[in-house]
Amino acid sequence: MKTAVFIEPGKMVAQDLPKATIKAPTDAVLKVVRACVCGSDLWWYRGLAKRPANSPAGHEAIGIVESVGAEVTNVQPGDFVIAPFTHGCGHCAACLAGFDGDCQNNTDSEVVGYQGEYLRFTNADWALVKIPGQPADYTDAQLNDLLALSDVMATGYHAAVSAEVKAGDTVVVMGDGAVGLCGVIAAKLLGAQRIIAMSRHADRQQLAQEFGATDIVAERGTAAVERVMALTAGAGADAVLECVGTAQSVDTAVQVGRPGAVVGRVGVPQKAEMNTNNLFWKNIGLRGGIAAVTTADRQVLLDAVLKGAIHPGKVFTQRFDLDHIQDAYTAMDQRTAIKSLLVISD
Amino acid sequence: MKTAVFIEPGKMVAQDLPKATIKAPTDAVLKVVRACVCGSDLWWYRGLAKRPANSPAGHEAIGIVESVGAEVTNVQPGDFVIAPFTHGCGHCAACLAGFDGDCQNNTDSEVVGYQGEYLRFTNADWALVKIPGQPADYTDAQLNDLLALSDVMATGYHAAVSAEVKAGDTVVVMGDGAVGLCGVIAAKLLGAQRIIAMSRHADRQQLAQEFGATDIVAERGTAAVERVMALTAGAGADAVLECVGTAQSVDTAVQVGRPGAVVGRVGVPQKAEMNTNNLFWKNIGLRGGIAAVTTADRQVLLDAVLKGAIHPGKVFTQRFDLDHIQDAYTAMDQRTAIKSLLVISD
Repeated sequence: MKTAVFIEPGKMVAQDLPKATIKAPTDAVLKVVRACVCGSDLWWYRGLAKRPANSPAGHEAIGIVESVGAEVTNVQPGDFVIAPFTHGCGHCAACLAGFDGDCQNNTDSEVVGYQGEYLRFTNADWALVKIPGQPADYTDAQLNDLLALSDVMATGYHAAVSAEVKAGDTVVVMGDGAVGLCGVIAAKLLGAQRIIAMSRHADRQQLAQEFGATDIVAERGTAAVERVMALTAGAGADAVLECVGTAQSVDTAVQVGRPGAVVGRVGVPQKAEMNTNNLFWKNIGLRGGIAAVTTADRQVLLDAVLKGAIHPGKVFTQRFDLDHIQDAYTAMDQRTAIKSLLVISD
Repeated sequence: MKTAVFIEPGKMVAQDLPKATIKAPTDAVLKVVRACVCGSDLWWYRGLAKRPANSPAGHEAIGIVESVGAEVTNVQPGDFVIAPFTHGCGHCAACLAGFDGDCQNNTDSEVVGYQGEYLRFTNADWALVKIPGQPADYTDAQLNDLLALSDVMATGYHAAVSAEVKAGDTVVVMGDGAVGLCGVIAAKLLGAQRIIAMSRHADRQQLAQEFGATDIVAERGTAAVERVMALTAGAGADAVLECVGTAQSVDTAVQVGRPGAVVGRVGVPQKAEMNTNNLFWKNIGLRGGIAAVTTADRQVLLDAVLKGAIHPGKVFTQRFDLDHIQDAYTAMDQRTAIKSLLVISD
């Protein structure tokens, strides 16, 4: 099967690897329909995080179930599914509490690539999210919306839920990458009245506004804090979505919150140590982490996509096939694409 | 008026100071009935935090309103009130959101001592909490329960609310000081099913159990984490109340939470820098800070005390008068008292 393989920082190739097979009774093998490149893939692509050389890549896809292990009964061959990057068992304390991204029974350590023709998916019974019908029943745009539910939209939603966004809130969204833009969608979905998007790129500002942003702040650091305070009459925001992960972004997020606000962060932290006194003395909460994709999709997001209430697929601004995997990464790396789509099969 | 004055670390005396007066139209002057010593007072008493020499001390009291400023209409002379350590205005974004401990209009910087015969109280109109009737209408134990609502019980409650304790939860309470013990009361009040109190002192263990603790863990550090994991079948706790503030305690709090749990902390942080990756990768939330005393008392705690549903005054295990203020501090410092009560006037 053809699969995207990471050779070394800056170099991706499509290679022919042995076809994915069932290895555990809780596995499924999927035939991938669409996949994509994640902002977090850029960490190892740029050499800023470690990844084994010659390893298959990607963790977002939609596809068709081809075969299932003996213990998988909730999905069967032929089902059209979202393949989350998370693998919740559905019955541990974490999954039951709605945090399937931190499943306590997700112990399989094989590096699996979703950017390929086939995919071995662990904990398939509960974690896969069934989509009604078949790919042919959906428009191109709808397929992209569904693909976004495998990670980016669920992650933006996790930021909003972690930040405890409520109806009527004034919300700040830090980050205008695909996750931040999906955070804007999520804040609006949860009833935010005012959504202040931090963005300094015209194309992303425009998409943020299309998704529901009411204000755009292009400044950073102290100037950004001053702008948000001016926009909120000195009060600060009710909730802050941190979708970047840099120390500066987290620091700004804490500063723009009003006392009692929660910073919901999904940007992978680049710096572990932080001064948490700024949190304590303002009662600012810090929540977030790995998205709970299956929970979010089943409870809220799949329905919202099927109804046409949200259109997260608009974050895919360039499309590629597997033979052009290098171009797909380059477009993300050089920010010519907000997010790169991979069309794998019909 | 006689007032407790901090001379230098380890030395407290009762001095005769000029009587408190109205200085701002939002002030009230209170005649103090009862006051007490706080665990946080020990920081400067022990020389671990700075405090001006010869400054009046204390921040917890109940008393009678003696006079009010021109803008104070909600309380009047003769009213029996709780004097919180917080001074919410009641109308800024922080107060409106229920975080009056971080009032954005609380700008008075005078060091006021509640451990004295009279007290100047700022932002009195909204922040003071009226108690029905007069002191003579209450038993000695009830007066102590009411006094606890000026800080310690509201702070324990803030830990539980910050930790988002829900009915049926398994809750860990870190710290067996007066605040931690009040955290046990609060967790039970919010419906926790199982309350694991971390305590290594027999008298405090007993009071924790009386307040609703179902399990006692005397271990610390890694051994404590292992004990909690064993008690929760490897899952971790749904919510954690951090009522200590040391780096070790915060670290243990994060480790004993299940994915998605929130650590509600009210222990003043002794170390600002912390590794927050442990939070991110387990989706552990960190909330808390200064209690919202007026909000908590008005919404929940005063009613619970008046009904006899909670008895936080039991944390006062020794009583003193102002002439024995040194003994009151020594008892707290040497842990012979869980919390020292000061009986000021009838």
